[in-house]
Amino acid sequence: MNDLTVSLDPASSVPLYEQIYQHIKKEIQSGGLSFGTRLPSTRNLAGYLQVSRTTADMAYSQLVSEGYIEAVPCRGYFVCELEGLYCPGTESKERHAEKKPEEKKYRYDFSPSGVDLNSFPYGAWRKLSKNILMADNKKIFQLGDPQGEYALRCSIADYLHQARGVLAEPEQIVVGAGNDFLLLLLCSMLGTGQKIAMESPTYRKAYDLLGNLSNEIRIVEMDEAGMRIDSLEASGADIAYVMPSHQFPLGIVMPVGRRMQLLEWAAKSERRFIIEDDYDSEFRYRGKPIPALQGFDRSGRVIYIGTFSKSIAPAIRVSYLVLPDRLMELYRQRGRLISSTVSRVDQLLIAGFLDDGYYERHLNKMRAIYKSRHDVLLEEMRGFQGICQISGENAGVHILLTFKNGMTEQEAIARAAKEGVRVYGLSRYYIGMDDRNKTSRQSHTVILGYANVEEAEIRAAAGCLRRAWS
Amino acid sequence: MNDLTVSLDPASSVPLYEQIYQHIKKEIQSGGLSFGTRLPSTRNLAGYLQVSRTTADMAYSQLVSEGYIEAVPCRGYFVCELEGLYCPGTESKERHAEKKPEEKKYRYDFSPSGVDLNSFPYGAWRKLSKNILMADNKKIFQLGDPQGEYALRCSIADYLHQARGVLAEPEQIVVGAGNDFLLLLLCSMLGTGQKIAMESPTYRKAYDLLGNLSNEIRIVEMDEAGMRIDSLEASGADIAYVMPSHQFPLGIVMPVGRRMQLLEWAAKSERRFIIEDDYDSEFRYRGKPIPALQGFDRSGRVIYIGTFSKSIAPAIRVSYLVLPDRLMELYRQRGRLISSTVSRVDQLLIAGFLDDGYYERHLNKMRAIYKSRHDVLLEEMRGFQGICQISGENAGVHILLTFKNGMTEQEAIARAAKEGVRVYGLSRYYIGMDDRNKTSRQSHTVILGYANVEEAEIRAAAGCLRRAWS
Repeated sequence: MNDLTVSLDPASSVPLYEQIYQHIKKEIQSGGLSFGTRLPSTRNLAGYLQVSRTTADMAYSQLVSEGYIEAVPCRGYFVCELEGLYCPGTESKERHAEKKPEEKKYRYDFSPSGVDLNSFPYGAWRKLSKNILMADNKKIFQLGDPQGEYALRCSIADYLHQARGVLAEPEQIVVGAGNDFLLLLLCSMLGTGQKIAMESPTYRKAYDLLGNLSNEIRIVEMDEAGMRIDSLEASGADIAYVMPSHQFPLGIVMPVGRRMQLLEWAAKSERRFIIEDDYDSEFRYRGKPIPALQGFDRSGRVIYIGTFSKSIAPAIRVSYLVLPDRLMELYRQRGRLISSTVSRVDQLLIAGFLDDGYYERHLNKMRAIYKSRHDVLLEEMRGFQGICQISGENAGVHILLTFKNGMTEQEAIARAAKEGVRVYGLSRYYIGMDDRNKTSRQSHTVILGYANVEEAEIRAAAGCLRRAWS
Repeated sequence: MNDLTVSLDPASSVPLYEQIYQHIKKEIQSGGLSFGTRLPSTRNLAGYLQVSRTTADMAYSQLVSEGYIEAVPCRGYFVCELEGLYCPGTESKERHAEKKPEEKKYRYDFSPSGVDLNSFPYGAWRKLSKNILMADNKKIFQLGDPQGEYALRCSIADYLHQARGVLAEPEQIVVGAGNDFLLLLLCSMLGTGQKIAMESPTYRKAYDLLGNLSNEIRIVEMDEAGMRIDSLEASGADIAYVMPSHQFPLGIVMPVGRRMQLLEWAAKSERRFIIEDDYDSEFRYRGKPIPALQGFDRSGRVIYIGTFSKSIAPAIRVSYLVLPDRLMELYRQRGRLISSTVSRVDQLLIAGFLDDGYYERHLNKMRAIYKSRHDVLLEEMRGFQGICQISGENAGVHILLTFKNGMTEQEAIARAAKEGVRVYGLSRYYIGMDDRNKTSRQSHTVILGYANVEEAEIRAAAGCLRRAWS
């Protein structure tokens, strides 16, 4: 009986039954109580430890439920065989914190992928999260629809219709954990070996990702309106990957005429599709917002992809595809194989965020914040007009500066770094390097993302940049 | 000023400033207050509506922050241009509930993919979730490591070491949203066109998924110990996809001898790898648990894949890869392109669930529950020994029944359905149908999954099956 000499601490916040359970469990795990050992009856244990019978009962029933002991009718409680039970060791391996490559410290970082999180509605998020977890629990832990929760798809359809002019039924929407995943999904549906037209420079991740899956990437020329249709036609590609609302990284907003030509190109063959990546269309500062390409598509050629990672928070891993009707059969055959990559809790949380008006308020607030930063940055950059030209400033959360005085991208970055300011080179976004691409722009242009730099910081950083570049 | 005649309801749970904000917002959206209109000063508004100055201030500052009005110093508040602002319509589209194909109703469903959720520790889950959302908010909404949170990878490494004999540093672990996604990721790393050996029958989803990505699937013969090495060698495959702990669907536990042969096969060429899918190894009922194949791998050939979807809950979309060192460089080049598919909140939640001992208790509890159901089902099935043979019963949460009396799979399923019991055919898991595979087993075997059928239900269903099959 020595093994059951539990030192109970009535003052502890751990309930007595839990203390008894923990003690006996440890004894069984360590072998102090071996397989087949008979435990005292709950009445005897209660008397011995001077606790209530209920306390002893609760401790035993916890041990029974986890497979440490079993109740044999009319005979009592016996220690089970531990084989197969998962008994973690008392100490886990000592680990050093992850070694990360040392990051150079900058006072101001104009990262083009920054997102401001100071205005994130944490309170609303917590409230929604709590309500979902309190509600009908069991259902939301069962496997959901591979395509995404119907409620969320309805909310997204409504939002896209009202905000982006996208015409989508919830049945056409596929929810997934981020754009990268959705591009993989699309490739697994369409089959690899597709001929995909991309601009250069472009969103480099999409290029690398599509290329890794053995697609043939055809680089297509651009002009000031975006992807050139003659070059697209000549490329022999079947799929065109474009960002008409705000080309990354050049910031071109594709005019309506070019959009129509692109749709005409696609309509010419059954095999042709357009992937419209609408990654940051929420933020636009000049002129009327142009509805998404998808809204003009009459022949079912546009595959629309959007995300909440940019408009809510990067760690919110929720993006969505709008598939044309013609691809739905293929999705049902091949795409539905892949179980949903977003937890149902997160899906319902975002549906609530949209339906209860939080998203509207958050978007408008962020747009106002980004607009102020945009305006301050442009104002400050006006001082640089002698040495560089500004572009890509009509939408999104970054601008481009192209040096007219011969300063190279590398030089501009290095000089800015010396003053504690991080700016980014355009050249990293060029793909399939050949001479045609080695324009002056490529090697004389830097990118400044302002989403995560406050107004006062922008002004201070501009001062540093003046010293750096003059 | 008519537009600002707000009917305030002091008894409402909506604060007064919010009521004013909502009213003015609606007026601006509807055009009642147009671009450039000057609003009354907060002092005048407060007097007019008989609210405090602070209330009026709060309403205006909310409107300013969302871009509806702007404050012009010394002149007052003016309505902004709405272009670019997202203003949802008052009513969203009426939708009918999603049309779902009518499911036949069964009284008892022995689905092989069932998971019991009655014992899910909802309270602990809620508590962990709440604590994470209360803590340092901003950081967890920033984009995390594509590989997964380091804290979670440490917890998984410890768990895998103690429970499965897997030798992994957190640096080798990649967290992702489900096995399906991780297989896609793996393909995008390795490149498509791989020659992959699979058993038949096998986990059909993996077959379809790997096949869609233009890999060549080579079907390899099995015997009672699992994948045959001679057949594997002859297949010319470079990658072998296996489930040594519990082959799905046959339930074979690969003996140690065969495991060693498999590792020897892999060690013979630099190009060879083994994908070890350890999908339900947590549940094992007879004999000592055999450590994972990965734990015996000395030449860096095993890619281990495990999941929390089976052991915690299907809607928890968290799985993990353990990559051999030899693949880490490839992962860094190609795999890290894909941003994490699991939200940081979920990752920290699971890390807490493991570290605080909840996972241990939950696993042991589920194992005890599944063991009881397993025992009851086997006891009931003993009555069928005249007409069928039981297999696959040593682990996992399903068994196989092969009819010896000539009854076909289709017949057994149809007869059971008439009695209100759903059982599943083995034949759907056979891949690459050819004559070699058309064994008697294939067309005379049904699968009974018992994870989501309680003991009393199992007994009652067994009664129905006796009527159905006799």
